[in-house]
Amino acid sequence: MDKKPVYLSLLILCLLFTFSSVKAEDGYQLWQRYNQVTNKGQLKQYQQLLEEVVVQGNSPTLQIVKDELQTGLGGLLGKTTAVKESGGKKNVLLAGTRNGSALVKALGLEEDLKAVGPEGYLLLSQKANGKNYTVIAANSDLGVLYGTFHFLRLLQTQQDIQRLAVKSSPKTKLRILNHWDNLDRTVERGYAGFSLWDWHKLPDYIDQRYLDYARANASIGINGTVLTNVNANSLVLTPEYLKKVTALANAFRPYGLKVYLTARFSSPIEIGKLKTADPLDPAVKAWWQKKVEEIYQYIPDFGGFLVKANSEGQPGPQNYGRTHADGANMLADALSPKGGIVMWRAFVYDNNVPDDRAKQAYSEFKPLDGTFRKNVMVQVKNGAIDFQPREPFHPLFGAMPKTPLVMEFQITQEYLGQGTHLAYLAPMFKETLESDTYAQGKGSTVAKVVDGSLNGHSLSAMAGVANIGTDRNWTSHPFGQANWYTFGRLAWDHSLSSEQIADEWIRMTFSNEPKLISEVKNMMMGSREAVVNYMTPLGLHHIMGWSHHYGPGPWIKDKPRADWTSVYFHRADEKGLGFNRTKTGSNALAQYAPEVQAQWQDPATCPEKYLLWFHHVAWDQKLASGRTLWDELCYKYTAGIDSVKAMQQTWAGLASQVDPERHKQVSTFLKIQHDDAKWWRDACLLYFQTFSKKPIPAGLEKPEHTLEYYQKLDPKFVPGI
Amino acid sequence: MDKKPVYLSLLILCLLFTFSSVKAEDGYQLWQRYNQVTNKGQLKQYQQLLEEVVVQGNSPTLQIVKDELQTGLGGLLGKTTAVKESGGKKNVLLAGTRNGSALVKALGLEEDLKAVGPEGYLLLSQKANGKNYTVIAANSDLGVLYGTFHFLRLLQTQQDIQRLAVKSSPKTKLRILNHWDNLDRTVERGYAGFSLWDWHKLPDYIDQRYLDYARANASIGINGTVLTNVNANSLVLTPEYLKKVTALANAFRPYGLKVYLTARFSSPIEIGKLKTADPLDPAVKAWWQKKVEEIYQYIPDFGGFLVKANSEGQPGPQNYGRTHADGANMLADALSPKGGIVMWRAFVYDNNVPDDRAKQAYSEFKPLDGTFRKNVMVQVKNGAIDFQPREPFHPLFGAMPKTPLVMEFQITQEYLGQGTHLAYLAPMFKETLESDTYAQGKGSTVAKVVDGSLNGHSLSAMAGVANIGTDRNWTSHPFGQANWYTFGRLAWDHSLSSEQIADEWIRMTFSNEPKLISEVKNMMMGSREAVVNYMTPLGLHHIMGWSHHYGPGPWIKDKPRADWTSVYFHRADEKGLGFNRTKTGSNALAQYAPEVQAQWQDPATCPEKYLLWFHHVAWDQKLASGRTLWDELCYKYTAGIDSVKAMQQTWAGLASQVDPERHKQVSTFLKIQHDDAKWWRDACLLYFQTFSKKPIPAGLEKPEHTLEYYQKLDPKFVPGI
Repeated sequence: MDKKPVYLSLLILCLLFTFSSVKAEDGYQLWQRYNQVTNKGQLKQYQQLLEEVVVQGNSPTLQIVKDELQTGLGGLLGKTTAVKESGGKKNVLLAGTRNGSALVKALGLEEDLKAVGPEGYLLLSQKANGKNYTVIAANSDLGVLYGTFHFLRLLQTQQDIQRLAVKSSPKTKLRILNHWDNLDRTVERGYAGFSLWDWHKLPDYIDQRYLDYARANASIGINGTVLTNVNANSLVLTPEYLKKVTALANAFRPYGLKVYLTARFSSPIEIGKLKTADPLDPAVKAWWQKKVEEIYQYIPDFGGFLVKANSEGQPGPQNYGRTHADGANMLADALSPKGGIVMWRAFVYDNNVPDDRAKQAYSEFKPLDGTFRKNVMVQVKNGAIDFQPREPFHPLFGAMPKTPLVMEFQITQEYLGQGTHLAYLAPMFKETLESDTYAQGKGSTVAKVVDGSLNGHSLSAMAGVANIGTDRNWTSHPFGQANWYTFGRLAWDHSLSSEQIADEWIRMTFSNEPKLISEVKNMMMGSREAVVNYMTPLGLHHIMGWSHHYGPGPWIKDKPRADWTSVYFHRADEKGLGFNRTKTGSNALAQYAPEVQAQWQDPATCPEKYLLWFHHVAWDQKLASGRTLWDELCYKYTAGIDSVKAMQQTWAGLASQVDPERHKQVSTFLKIQHDDAKWWRDACLLYFQTFSKKPIPAGLEKPEHTLEYYQKLDPKFVPGI
Repeated sequence: MDKKPVYLSLLILCLLFTFSSVKAEDGYQLWQRYNQVTNKGQLKQYQQLLEEVVVQGNSPTLQIVKDELQTGLGGLLGKTTAVKESGGKKNVLLAGTRNGSALVKALGLEEDLKAVGPEGYLLLSQKANGKNYTVIAANSDLGVLYGTFHFLRLLQTQQDIQRLAVKSSPKTKLRILNHWDNLDRTVERGYAGFSLWDWHKLPDYIDQRYLDYARANASIGINGTVLTNVNANSLVLTPEYLKKVTALANAFRPYGLKVYLTARFSSPIEIGKLKTADPLDPAVKAWWQKKVEEIYQYIPDFGGFLVKANSEGQPGPQNYGRTHADGANMLADALSPKGGIVMWRAFVYDNNVPDDRAKQAYSEFKPLDGTFRKNVMVQVKNGAIDFQPREPFHPLFGAMPKTPLVMEFQITQEYLGQGTHLAYLAPMFKETLESDTYAQGKGSTVAKVVDGSLNGHSLSAMAGVANIGTDRNWTSHPFGQANWYTFGRLAWDHSLSSEQIADEWIRMTFSNEPKLISEVKNMMMGSREAVVNYMTPLGLHHIMGWSHHYGPGPWIKDKPRADWTSVYFHRADEKGLGFNRTKTGSNALAQYAPEVQAQWQDPATCPEKYLLWFHHVAWDQKLASGRTLWDELCYKYTAGIDSVKAMQQTWAGLASQVDPERHKQVSTFLKIQHDDAKWWRDACLLYFQTFSKKPIPAGLEKPEHTLEYYQKLDPKFVPGI
């Protein structure tokens, strides 16, 4: 009998499942979607070259490699792919280390492998013994895992793999997510639900999501995670919580993800029952030493501490008349025998309101250069204020040659529209990394400071404040995933271009369809500039809503500290707008190298994007466009809204190419973004108009409501505090 | 050419998707899994009888009916099932109302439909015009939807549908979930993550989860939801939030789910700028009237208010020397023209600590019977204290014949192990519902009070405090889903047995495999008694940890109110244990009917399960088992642990019959439950031993630690506060 009917009914049943699986495209899979390759030519190439898969070895990490190849190739090639210990076919995918795999060892590769270091890998096409090998080789199992993800990415993005000759190793040694997660599962500046860490059910219950989180991080090379908020709770250092941290560390270990904790400086008092936390007190030193030993009993590969001290109310060494170096070194001495490090944040406030907030980190830390232990890194935000949509690079980069500096980027969009605005951050991160500090002459980029190459530091690190939470799609905005992805990719290789990262991410997250790639990339590449335009154009900064930072608040004044208000930062008056940071003002500019000062001190040569950051400019001043400052401000704010409108239009045109659930969510969020952009423009222009006394240029839309209306808006329960 | 290869490769591709869909069994689908029917005979019957599906009409609710039948039958029968407006085949599934469907009208059914009322439905096998109809008929589209879910349940549980003759209508008119959700998304007594309501993104963003929530509720007949915590925030009544509530109401409406809000009694002061909230003040009355009119402008079918007043610090009419009736009636008058109702909670505290907390609700509310408006219901917890693992029924049931009483059950397991203990609550709910109040002689069950039949009330309601949150599987514990399911089923029909509800739920949630059904049912049926035994056997109550209520705390004393402590409730002393509520004690027993008093006042006839609730019993008193009270206490606590051990063993044996993700989660939670049970036993026995001065009987395990050890345990950041 013909068996077609059986096939057919099975097929129909399966199609139903397939259908429901397509329907359920809720973003949980991130960029790790392994849908079948649509390009027939490439698919054929892959199927030919990957006749069988051989992985020798059985470590937990290699087990993940096997699972990933099986799942990945199963989906991408549309056929079940068994992973074997040895093979018989002619065209073989081979993954492993020289030490763990005789087949890899037989291929030679000794020199090439030496060059890529402990975490790097090779992807090679190589003939041997009459076979065609596609090789993923590394010096460690973790390197093999990283190589595996890279290899699968080539297939996901439908690249040619006929003649592979990839050598890859990370430019930064430590690539770390910073979670500002509190023990009650709220997340400071978190806009994607709540903390992933379900502390109450730990250490017993290992949520599947913990493994999926580690897997996603491994796929982009992230190798460390600080589990807790920099505004720290010492409770996490008690045995009860250390057991919970241990369970997470055990779950993450096979993925190469090391665990770090934030250390509250006053812990010796709060949980150690000491009378002081003075870093020079012998009892305090002994307490931390014992605490560190205890931690390493639980977690032998514990990464170390991230510390926020003497900043925004956090305790620190200055409480005892000691310096930041005294505090950091005391912790470093405790960690040093175990191989742990201290990341000491430079984001500090003292008790006095400075003449210019922008100067404080440099003032406090530059003199300490050379006084830190070898296992101390100073962690510096990309700019001197606080993760604004645009800031000039932080003057500490290049100014502390004897100290390895950690770059702290904020992936979570505290100041860039939070959970609902589309803002692709790669151009922002790149802008900082490519800035020239001139610390050792031209070409002394921030990237070279951070990767250690400028000053010969072997310790190097990049930290990203995570935008991840319990939301099903991890990041609230589907495009927030791109920023997590970007952080990992740039931490591995800061020379990648924003375009290339966007290209990879779009192909893996949506599809390889050329029209979609090109239009979505276009949206992404302009999105951060759109935010700058509708929030803080021309160098404006820190003029958002009080405390929650959502929406505009240029009128904010009379708060506990002047440098927490908007009027402090924009300095609007009847004459003009902007913060004079030149010699005639706060002279913060003097913290930069002379070459930088030379360019920025003159409003005529200062890039307009930084104009109001460094200069108080008259309302009537003509800018490059030929317009006055006031008119240009009006045009910039309006341009921001126009960009969002364009994104809305582009996205609407892609309805047939994106699954309905994600398409609808992005559409809705773009509408929110549009309305918020208008809110920003109307509120800011109406407010600044009270100083400029000038009309909005003809042809530009008039504000919808009065200034009073906007000043009364008071959104409650904004997430993230 | 033979087309087999094409089918084959498509088949393999599809199987891959199928595989990944099985792998992803994360509990999100609840009991709404539509896997193919495994019983070949039944499958054949279904396929024969359901040759085609006809639904006439296009309302949003009927659209859901169509989608549900298409998805449901597609999965269950393993074939694509198009839903048509008219049919040609012989064996037809026909769904609709007489008004909306000519085909349904042609079948007659007028009398039968009249009998099932506005929400009820018929499921019938009927021949007409030479066709075999399987009919889902109702008087409203919502009735059709309810019938559709019932019909699909028959297939999911693999019942014979050859000769259907089902008439079903709800025994309670309002079947309402109470969400104790705060506007910051924390959930009071919530153990499944955070609030589903993402207020910040409303009204724009409609999370797919809102629709899935409404669908799940509709599938078990729940027709109302109170979105906000009874400890209320008046902000939800401002236009900003009412717009958000409207978006939810619009999303829920097609599923028959009405929206209610909690009304903070002091709202006229807080958001209305009045100087008082006195319910007899004309300005206050006018404010509420206007507020209600405003709400109905947004939500024309708004359900009404749930109010917690003069209880645990909440404001209320007593602040102004008025009664609960004054307060409720004032709101009722505002709601009455719009058809809204007031549910006024009887769970009250006044400022004085009463001689017996158990008496207070009765004392305050019984005298008010007959003074409430027609659209006021008084909402009464199942017992007089506070959702303990076991309580005698609340004495108000039967004591307020002129007032319709809402039964308030707590689905969330505040006192029954919270997010990680397996406790199937149907036996607990049924225990209360089947209790005889003797209010109108024997047979005056609580159920008859609640469904209105005892006193001829047309308004009737059952409320369940939700156990739902953002956790992927909705309820934290996979078996928590059974309690949500149970609440809906019992609110529809309180005569269903716990066994039947468990049977349905297991088949739909796991499988129709007989061994699995029988063993899981066995686990479930004994699980609540296990919790009673290891927490509060023999009528003990309210001896848990302070504030968060997690774990044992029989030693709790010296708190702001005596009736918030454990020692107040267990009254342990050197003589014995238990709260004397007879004539020689607080005489709370006098609040029950004479027949009840007669049985409970004598320790010899009082059921042992209530013994220490009503009596202070000597340690040496012999109980029915022949053991002394002290020995029986030791045995009961131990039996609780043994039950959990037995569940662990049973569950381990089912590893091959449950998907790995859910199996592992339940295993882990059973381990936590076991450890917690031991914690409860050891802590309570050691503590009570300081009074009894007696040894733990030979043969029973000794406590693992000292009493001091347990008293020092202090879990932090317990969820749900």
